[in-house]
Amino acid sequence: MERLVESVPNVSEGRDRAAIEALAAALRAVPTVRLLDVQSDPDHHRTVFTLVGDPDGVAEAILRLYGEAVPRIDLRVHRGEHPRMGAVDVVPFVPVRGVTMADCVALARRVGEEVWERFRIPVYLYEEAASRPERRDLAEIRRGEFEGFPEKILRPEWAPDFGERAVHPTAGVTAIGAREFLIAFNVNLGTSDLRVAKAVAQAVRFSSGGLRYVKAIGLELKERGIVQVSMNLTNFRKTPLPRVLELVRLEAARYGVPVVGTELVGLVPGEALLHAAAHYLQVEDFSPGVVLERRIEEAFAQG
Amino acid sequence: MERLVESVPNVSEGRDRAAIEALAAALRAVPTVRLLDVQSDPDHHRTVFTLVGDPDGVAEAILRLYGEAVPRIDLRVHRGEHPRMGAVDVVPFVPVRGVTMADCVALARRVGEEVWERFRIPVYLYEEAASRPERRDLAEIRRGEFEGFPEKILRPEWAPDFGERAVHPTAGVTAIGAREFLIAFNVNLGTSDLRVAKAVAQAVRFSSGGLRYVKAIGLELKERGIVQVSMNLTNFRKTPLPRVLELVRLEAARYGVPVVGTELVGLVPGEALLHAAAHYLQVEDFSPGVVLERRIEEAFAQG
Repeated sequence: MERLVESVPNVSEGRDRAAIEALAAALRAVPTVRLLDVQSDPDHHRTVFTLVGDPDGVAEAILRLYGEAVPRIDLRVHRGEHPRMGAVDVVPFVPVRGVTMADCVALARRVGEEVWERFRIPVYLYEEAASRPERRDLAEIRRGEFEGFPEKILRPEWAPDFGERAVHPTAGVTAIGAREFLIAFNVNLGTSDLRVAKAVAQAVRFSSGGLRYVKAIGLELKERGIVQVSMNLTNFRKTPLPRVLELVRLEAARYGVPVVGTELVGLVPGEALLHAAAHYLQVEDFSPGVVLERRIEEAFAQG
Repeated sequence: MERLVESVPNVSEGRDRAAIEALAAALRAVPTVRLLDVQSDPDHHRTVFTLVGDPDGVAEAILRLYGEAVPRIDLRVHRGEHPRMGAVDVVPFVPVRGVTMADCVALARRVGEEVWERFRIPVYLYEEAASRPERRDLAEIRRGEFEGFPEKILRPEWAPDFGERAVHPTAGVTAIGAREFLIAFNVNLGTSDLRVAKAVAQAVRFSSGGLRYVKAIGLELKERGIVQVSMNLTNFRKTPLPRVLELVRLEAARYGVPVVGTELVGLVPGEALLHAAAHYLQVEDFSPGVVLERRIEEAFAQG
């Protein structure tokens, strides 16, 4: 398929297996879309779906997801550890192939408009699709959650991007946006001292002065007796994996602590790994066109 | 396509453009095969074709190549810098996807038998397809070249694997084999002293005590005022890129010389670059299954 978009809808249902299966079936019902992953967390009472397909197919699948979720989920009785404001809480669109960020922003707007029209759920656009800077950050939009929104939505600065100032009685409000692919990258450090992981996390993350597209926390891995810098890389092109790893290594060395291993959690774009290979192998004028499989694919695509 | 084989036939014609185009057309004529690259060298009077396709398709394309080459090329009048013994000098089959080395050995034997039957050219099997150890090395088989073969073929140890002890009058003999994918990897060193490149090449190459699947020479890059260790990696799974680069770096550091850059010449299997990324990123339990594009491809292939 020439044009591919990923979407990662987060839905406020993580316990009822029949309901989760019905939501998954709605996403699978579009022939040009594939559901790659379903992660349900009963404690969070939340399920994260990962799907890919052509832009129109993914838009259609997401609208069907709202159609299944709205009658099944009642936020008035929803209790879970994860903050939430809607039955379909948040829907990002991510460019994968042959699609620009501008295309994903347009897709977010199109789906947002349709969600209000069909389901009467107020829509907030976020991240790259945000209509104003203070709406880029999803956490800012969600602050107050479902319970606080009847009051929040009346404030002038929190008028929804699509829809009226009326929270849907059971489905709340929803955030729809566009963002870069997110890489979950953890670096394990050869010490049991949690303070080292916390100090390194603080040094590398954007919020406290580190790299722009890095979120990081320090954690203990108790069974292994070591600690971990657990990170989300929110723009792997602008803040690439090697720069992150080597900065973590440098900061940990400050305490005489080595990097003993790393973890890539979930999926990673091949481009991010090719870039890492070219970086460390010091390849001059690297082009992904040297990859055999890519050349073969192109040759057969040309017919 | 599920099963993919690469072949890199070397043909003793590097000057007549019409002849080279006719040879390329023969390879392109099989619908399930793609010709990825054609490199002609007039000084060598030799052309190297790179094609991929399903095993049966590639076998058919190679037989068509012999069919076009035999009437066009007369080794009695062929003069070039590169050693050669046949009109189609050497044909390796390389496993790419869904195909084992044993499959490629079987393919070499099948094509070899057919080449003798159809064209009456004696066939030597080489590398992984070799019938005895001293025939693994193509240079050993080719020693004496076209001019020496009428005498060499009569020696008991040089009876062909397929065919009679009679060199084809114009097309000579031919070598058909199976081998791993070959990566051409050059490392540029920050010095103008050719002795350093030669010493490093000697240290890292198999023939003088280095890594098993490395061939290396030292060269000058005169325009840039630096030197280069120019290598062929003949088994990137067993002697991977990072081990080669880091050994070159270590040996060069012995002279206080840094690695200033590298070059990947031609095509490189994605697997070799993914392995390099996982190596340098220190990923624990790396699996190519984490690559987004691969997961997408699998999801759509499953339908």
